[in-house]
Amino acid sequence: MTLCISLAARPSNIGTRFHNYLYEELNLNYVYKAFAPVDLADAVRGIRGLGIRGAAVSMPYKEQVIALVDRLDASAAAIDSVNTIVNDSGVLTAYNTDYLAIERLLREHRIAATSTVLLQGSGGMAKAVAAALRDAGFRAVTIVARNESTGRPLAELYGFDWTAEAGERTAQLLINVTPLGMQGAEEEVLAFTAQTIDAAETVFDVVALPAETPLIKAGRAAGKKIISGAEVIAIQAEEQFVLYTGVRPSVEQVRAASEFSRA
Amino acid sequence: MTLCISLAARPSNIGTRFHNYLYEELNLNYVYKAFAPVDLADAVRGIRGLGIRGAAVSMPYKEQVIALVDRLDASAAAIDSVNTIVNDSGVLTAYNTDYLAIERLLREHRIAATSTVLLQGSGGMAKAVAAALRDAGFRAVTIVARNESTGRPLAELYGFDWTAEAGERTAQLLINVTPLGMQGAEEEVLAFTAQTIDAAETVFDVVALPAETPLIKAGRAAGKKIISGAEVIAIQAEEQFVLYTGVRPSVEQVRAASEFSRA
Repeated sequence: MTLCISLAARPSNIGTRFHNYLYEELNLNYVYKAFAPVDLADAVRGIRGLGIRGAAVSMPYKEQVIALVDRLDASAAAIDSVNTIVNDSGVLTAYNTDYLAIERLLREHRIAATSTVLLQGSGGMAKAVAAALRDAGFRAVTIVARNESTGRPLAELYGFDWTAEAGERTAQLLINVTPLGMQGAEEEVLAFTAQTIDAAETVFDVVALPAETPLIKAGRAAGKKIISGAEVIAIQAEEQFVLYTGVRPSVEQVRAASEFSRA
Repeated sequence: MTLCISLAARPSNIGTRFHNYLYEELNLNYVYKAFAPVDLADAVRGIRGLGIRGAAVSMPYKEQVIALVDRLDASAAAIDSVNTIVNDSGVLTAYNTDYLAIERLLREHRIAATSTVLLQGSGGMAKAVAAALRDAGFRAVTIVARNESTGRPLAELYGFDWTAEAGERTAQLLINVTPLGMQGAEEEVLAFTAQTIDAAETVFDVVALPAETPLIKAGRAAGKKIISGAEVIAIQAEEQFVLYTGVRPSVEQVRAASEFSRA
C-alpha cells in the first residue's frame, strides 16, 4: 500500500477526504493521511526514508520546503512556492498545482492572452495567478492591492502595473484573490464595482467558500463568463492526484470527490 | 488521528491487522501502517518529524536502530535488540516486547526460578529468552545449540552452560527457539526427545506456526504444562499496543485481535 500525506500546521480533512475517496473509487492501493509536522526537515527526510509517495504542503511550509527537496518543477519555480512533493525512488520534486490549476483554467475557459486583466490581491495565491497569466502570455495586467509594499513588488516581478484601487478602471478579465466575499471575512463585499463587472467579459473569483460569492453572483447575473474558486480547488487537487498516482480521474469522479471532501 | 507504523524489510500484515482491529474495537483514533523503509535513519527521523507515535521494528533493523533512538528501555538493553519504538513528544524510547512477553509468560505460568532449563536455540529470540530467564533469577540453564560459535557466547553472556546436543539431558523447563517443528521448515521434527519431554514439567515452544508444533502436541499428550509461541506473539503485540496507546485491552480482545490478525 502506498502512502500520500499532507504537511500543514493546521491540517484540514478536505485533502484526506478527496484523495481517499478517489483511491477507493479507482481501486488504487493507496492511503492518504494528514500530518502536522513537528519538524519540517525531519518530516521531509521521513518522506524519503519511509518511501512516502507524495505530500501536499500547506501554510506555513510552502517556501521553507524548497531547500529540502531535490528538484523544483517550473510550476513551483515560477512562484517560489510549493504545494506538492512527489517522491520518485528517493528523488523529491516540488510542484505548485495551484499554478497548474490557474494555467489550466485560463486555457480551458479560452481566455485570450490579449485580454486586459484586473487582478485584485497580493498574497501567495495572487502570485500564482500573476505568474500563470504572465507565462500564458498575458501582458495588459494591473495588480490591484491597497498594500503597496506587497502589491507593487508583485506587479514589478511579472512586468505588470500596480494600482491601489480599481476605481473606475475596467478590464475584460476580472480576478479576485482577496478575502473579499469570503465566508467569515468580508462576505457581503463585492470585490469589484457593478460598472467594472458590467464592462468585463469574464469574472474569476478564486475565493471558494462560499461557492457563490457576491462577485460570482453579480457576474452570473450580468451574463458574464464565470470561473470559480471551487474549480481551482478541484483542479489543483486533481493535478496532485495525477502526480501521485499517474491516473487521471474522470470529470465526474473529480466532481464527486470534491463534493464528498467538503461535505 | 495518531499513526503507528512498522519498519521491516518484508512487511507482514499481521501487526497491521492486530493493531487496527483493536483501534476499532476500543474506539481509538489511531491508524497502523506497515513500511519497508528505503533508509532506516531517514525513516526514524520521519518518526520524529511527522510525529508518528510508535514503530514496530523487524528484521534486519533490530540492532541498527539502537544508534538512532534517544533512550533504551531495560527490555531492549538486556539483549541489544529493539522491536518497538515509542515517541514521546520527539523523544524516542526503544523497547523489546519479545523480552517483556517472555518475562510475563514465565511469571504468569508460575515457573519457579529454581527450575532447571534446557533452552534450544542461539538466535535473536533465544537471546531474548535467555535474558528474561537470567533477569527472572533462573540459574540452572543450559543453552542447546549445534552452532558453537553462537551457542557458547550466548551462554557465557548470561552465565549459563552450553551444549551442542541435548542428548539424554533432562530439565524441568524445556524451551525450543529453533525452527524445529516450524511450518515450512523441519515441521515433523520433535525439538526434544520423548524421554526428555517425559522428564519435564513445562514445555515452551516459541515457534508459533503451526500453533500446535510436534513439541506442543507431545507435551500436551504427556500432560505437561504448555506455553505456546502464539502466546508470545499475542503478548508481545499487546505490550506494544499498551506502550503506544496507554490502553490495556482485555484478554478476550487480545485473543480476538490475534485470531483476526492471522486469519
